[in-house]
Amino acid sequence: MRHHKLALCKDHYLSWVPSQISRSIADYAMVHPGERLLVAVSGGKDSLALWYILYILGYAPDGLYIGLGIDDGSGYSNTSLKVTKDFAAEHGLHLIVADVEELYGSTIPEAASLSPRGREKPCSVCGLTKRHIMNHIALEEGYDVLATGHNLDDEAAVLFGNTMNWQIGYLSRQGPVLESKDGFVKKIKPLFRFSERETAAYALLRGIEYIYEECSYAQGAKSIYYKEQLNNLEADRPGAKLAFYLSFLRAKASEGFLINAEMGTSLDACHTCGQPTSAPGTCAFCRTWDTIQTAKHEHGKDGS
Amino acid sequence: MRHHKLALCKDHYLSWVPSQISRSIADYAMVHPGERLLVAVSGGKDSLALWYILYILGYAPDGLYIGLGIDDGSGYSNTSLKVTKDFAAEHGLHLIVADVEELYGSTIPEAASLSPRGREKPCSVCGLTKRHIMNHIALEEGYDVLATGHNLDDEAAVLFGNTMNWQIGYLSRQGPVLESKDGFVKKIKPLFRFSERETAAYALLRGIEYIYEECSYAQGAKSIYYKEQLNNLEADRPGAKLAFYLSFLRAKASEGFLINAEMGTSLDACHTCGQPTSAPGTCAFCRTWDTIQTAKHEHGKDGS
Repeated sequence: MRHHKLALCKDHYLSWVPSQISRSIADYAMVHPGERLLVAVSGGKDSLALWYILYILGYAPDGLYIGLGIDDGSGYSNTSLKVTKDFAAEHGLHLIVADVEELYGSTIPEAASLSPRGREKPCSVCGLTKRHIMNHIALEEGYDVLATGHNLDDEAAVLFGNTMNWQIGYLSRQGPVLESKDGFVKKIKPLFRFSERETAAYALLRGIEYIYEECSYAQGAKSIYYKEQLNNLEADRPGAKLAFYLSFLRAKASEGFLINAEMGTSLDACHTCGQPTSAPGTCAFCRTWDTIQTAKHEHGKDGS
Repeated sequence: MRHHKLALCKDHYLSWVPSQISRSIADYAMVHPGERLLVAVSGGKDSLALWYILYILGYAPDGLYIGLGIDDGSGYSNTSLKVTKDFAAEHGLHLIVADVEELYGSTIPEAASLSPRGREKPCSVCGLTKRHIMNHIALEEGYDVLATGHNLDDEAAVLFGNTMNWQIGYLSRQGPVLESKDGFVKKIKPLFRFSERETAAYALLRGIEYIYEECSYAQGAKSIYYKEQLNNLEADRPGAKLAFYLSFLRAKASEGFLINAEMGTSLDACHTCGQPTSAPGTCAFCRTWDTIQTAKHEHGKDGS
């Protein structure tokens, strides 16, 4: 790990990663004693490694898998569900499984095809839906904290994108901890210091079976473009990616930077689902799925 | 110009550029009626194009050329002085010539070799010295505004560098206008909306003779690295560079971003030269040149 000026053998690496995550959790007050923890798991390296580490650190985390109904020949969703279930069974962990089609009547690809929001790519509908379900289930099932497997590459790419256009609203909300507020469960990202390569190395060395494929729809996503840019910077200057993200967090913690940038965004409960929204009346999730369900109904009638 | 979705013929380009600069000057209140304007000119495309445009816009700008004593076989400084003098004579403009060696006893390359600050590259000593001389002469000769030829590539590269490490002190001071304050003359950068290619095109089409070579010491500078990164982004998404810089300026003008980030930096007059400095006692310029002059004196004694 050039940017840490550190070279570790397998055993030391496998203990170093959890110890660093334990430190991140403490440094950023991610979890308080007695809080119930839910981990969003996709079957990929990051979320399974995170679930495992939180488990061995003693947080007794439950898992939440959301079935998206993405098939595309490779059986992406089926495989990722199987991998996740096997992992939970192996370690005796409790897994909650939610399925988008069962809950709302369409898979993500179908929903995207029926929604203006999904016209170019399903990613926007997918993200909106996952965030809604995660928050909904976490609150309904009485969890205090929702952990996600976002790694340094994910976080730095989002930061880079928001910085290229100086989206100060988004910048002010970005960080490894989003406190519980106005109907949002507290969200934490304990892997934010670890690059994709580092979490993959951990999962491999730990013998965690995970799904290697990326979702086929992710190709060409902006986030992947920004990751490439940051990887170029990292290749030229090892440590640049971590420095970029950590110095942002330090700047945020200091005086005079992004003060009150969030002010003015007041949240109300959605009239339909009750979850918090900055939109007046109905939230984006309910509006989007209303469109999808109406479109599906119309299609059904046409076909009958 | 893909990012402006604009294609202009020679005549229209030559009138479009000054009209845009006139608008920038008005939008950012760069010059007020009756203010005396000094332009820092190096003999390069940007500063000569800027001098010319300010002249045809009626600002009656004088020029300031600073001789750095950079030879390196190509006679860089001699050529740039000649080009600048010819330009001034052709248009009947008043040029002030200052020479670092005459003023302080060493050329920039010699000074850099004698100073710890210049050990790796002379650029740091050069920048420090030029900023000192520009401010000193502008104030002493009674100018209200100092204009420099920094273009979009320059400004965006500095912004990119400061953003990669979230230097909020620098970020809060960056912009096309730095108001006069505590012994600093007001500084403006009227070319900040124009890329290097656009100012070069203007100089060429306008028939301005300028020095093509870059300073040989600039090779490998960080600013050039950041320019390359931004050019990659620009190639993938035309307009990205301008959007990056302009959205930063918009964010700065909005509430809650970088408020008071400068607070805490109090400036005092340097005990030696009287110019403002954040250091206690003597400013970085005086300390650096004191070291250089002492080192030169010691060398002289050794040699005698």
